[in-house]
Amino acid sequence: MSPWSAARPGDPLSAVDTPALLLDLDAFERNLQRMATALAGSGVRLRAHAKSHKTPEIALRQVAMGAVGICCQKVSEAAVFIEAGIRDILVTNEVVGRVKIERLVGLAGKARIGVLADSAAPVAELARAAAAAGVAIDVYVEVDVGRRCGIAPGEPAAQLAAQIASLAPLRFAGLHVYHGPAQHLRSVAERTAAISFATDCARVSRDAVLARGLRCDTITGAGTGTFLLERDSGIYNEVQAGSYALMDRDYADNQRGPDDLGFEHALFVRTMVMSVSGGSRAVVDAGLKASSLDSGMPAVWQRPNWRYLKASDEHGVIEVTASAPPALGEALMLIPGHCDPTMNLYDELICFRGDRVEAVWPIAARGALL
Amino acid sequence: MSPWSAARPGDPLSAVDTPALLLDLDAFERNLQRMATALAGSGVRLRAHAKSHKTPEIALRQVAMGAVGICCQKVSEAAVFIEAGIRDILVTNEVVGRVKIERLVGLAGKARIGVLADSAAPVAELARAAAAAGVAIDVYVEVDVGRRCGIAPGEPAAQLAAQIASLAPLRFAGLHVYHGPAQHLRSVAERTAAISFATDCARVSRDAVLARGLRCDTITGAGTGTFLLERDSGIYNEVQAGSYALMDRDYADNQRGPDDLGFEHALFVRTMVMSVSGGSRAVVDAGLKASSLDSGMPAVWQRPNWRYLKASDEHGVIEVTASAPPALGEALMLIPGHCDPTMNLYDELICFRGDRVEAVWPIAARGALL
Repeated sequence: MSPWSAARPGDPLSAVDTPALLLDLDAFERNLQRMATALAGSGVRLRAHAKSHKTPEIALRQVAMGAVGICCQKVSEAAVFIEAGIRDILVTNEVVGRVKIERLVGLAGKARIGVLADSAAPVAELARAAAAAGVAIDVYVEVDVGRRCGIAPGEPAAQLAAQIASLAPLRFAGLHVYHGPAQHLRSVAERTAAISFATDCARVSRDAVLARGLRCDTITGAGTGTFLLERDSGIYNEVQAGSYALMDRDYADNQRGPDDLGFEHALFVRTMVMSVSGGSRAVVDAGLKASSLDSGMPAVWQRPNWRYLKASDEHGVIEVTASAPPALGEALMLIPGHCDPTMNLYDELICFRGDRVEAVWPIAARGALL
Repeated sequence: MSPWSAARPGDPLSAVDTPALLLDLDAFERNLQRMATALAGSGVRLRAHAKSHKTPEIALRQVAMGAVGICCQKVSEAAVFIEAGIRDILVTNEVVGRVKIERLVGLAGKARIGVLADSAAPVAELARAAAAAGVAIDVYVEVDVGRRCGIAPGEPAAQLAAQIASLAPLRFAGLHVYHGPAQHLRSVAERTAAISFATDCARVSRDAVLARGLRCDTITGAGTGTFLLERDSGIYNEVQAGSYALMDRDYADNQRGPDDLGFEHALFVRTMVMSVSGGSRAVVDAGLKASSLDSGMPAVWQRPNWRYLKASDEHGVIEVTASAPPALGEALMLIPGHCDPTMNLYDELICFRGDRVEAVWPIAARGALL
């Protein structure tokens, strides 16, 4: 990592070294408030997904604003957030293999831990490890709706639920029904259809679970692109949105519905023009090591005539039309294409309010892959 | 970062947690030897590019095998390698702005430091800062051959060289003529034509420099895809290859010429099957946070019927044809699409020999963006 920080609290925004990852605290706090308002009185809880930000300071604020806990994708991420004081974590992933299962069980002595399952063998192994350690674990059946992980809806899901319920100290906690591909379907109609399908999968699975005389306390899923649909589904009682706090260019590209909440861009990459050829192109010092390209190029913030054309590892090429040519040393802000893997590229988040740096937060779960 | 390591020295390879980044030490050492042999007696030096690996232990071995020093892309990377004992570093990038220039100058008291320039203003600022600090800095004129950074070949380059030479304590050290896009042109003929063009740019610039009565000691450039062409150009006397030590899928996709040196894949992502649906698809625990996708999907190592189809942040989807279906918990090795940004995703490199872990090296310059 870099031997020095891009900024210190108190620095003017104009002095932040580049490239750096910045959080606009005012926009971020408004986003948290919008989410709290959207769920207030709905009976649907927020379990904020921490894979979006990987930052304990953000998770603590989400919980302070009413989230029941957080989601993580990796056991090692969960360990980082527990160390920071989060006490209720759902690992929204299958955990397979002795080493990973033992580490997960080790965390269950320090926090309430949930995990997903989509097959029988790892569940049996998890039950043995939890029993040996004397801890309880919430296990959710992941129902396949997006053709990645998950077990088929209905009877197969209920059968796995029954197996979990029979294996104390595991607790069958409910169903995880997350439609990932739906989050970035561009039209409201497409997203509505996709979540209608996911809701059907959840309903048929829940009914099959209930038909076996089991409880099915929680039905959890949803992301920033669709959570209002799950909130109003009558089936889901927990949503897992994460990107709402930061917002990236890919989410901004979604068509917004009439009930859109107006989440704002709060996450930016500050970069600087480092080479100009005198023409309409400029090279900036933020390339694909500074803004993940998996969901496309970053957008240039508040400069309608500037376009980020392409990136190599350390450089971005900007095309400027119909305005003054870029100047060497000029700073600009980019909106990352995808917040999650962009957060994963940095060790620290420079938090600013207005034109001043207020805090520097460690992105402590960056690189937590295990 | 993860609170625990994927492996410890002495562990069997089969016990390495997943996903993890692995270096095959035997293949790596053979690659270093191949490079040394290729340059022996040619009069062309190696200045190995450390942006490929970001790992001091690798840089130290490259220097021990004859490299005159290393290249870095960022001032903060250079600081990391100096801390590890490297004493000759060329920052193959323009350095712009007071903060970055002062940090670069600060390093020049600890190691021989070179940097690129493609315009006059930063050179003047660098000269003032170096004079104030009482240190000398090597400055290379970057000649534009690939339409990113750089100044036009010939007179414009020579004029900038003259400016540098007039500004003690700066030293005009030579020309940086690197053709990035040429590295992955697939056919030998295309790469040959591109480097012929770059060589022409270098020659006309060198001649213009010499015509001004200046020396032009070093002409540096080249990457793993083309360095034999620069070696034999009669113009270049330093090459900057870096990926040769590791080799990625993108380089392996290049058509190999008759004098190909046979660099081997030495860098792998170890991953595990974490979900199976019973069909021909499996989900592994290495997604785009474990293997950078900017140059395409990773390849599956030594399993001709397995194909890595697509990735999300934490998952990869594998399609298996004409062989036994994948088993839950089964481990496999991936060859990353692009080694540089993949190294940037990990904090440690698990080095193995045969079937045993021999060392764990910190990827100390990962995330050094400033």
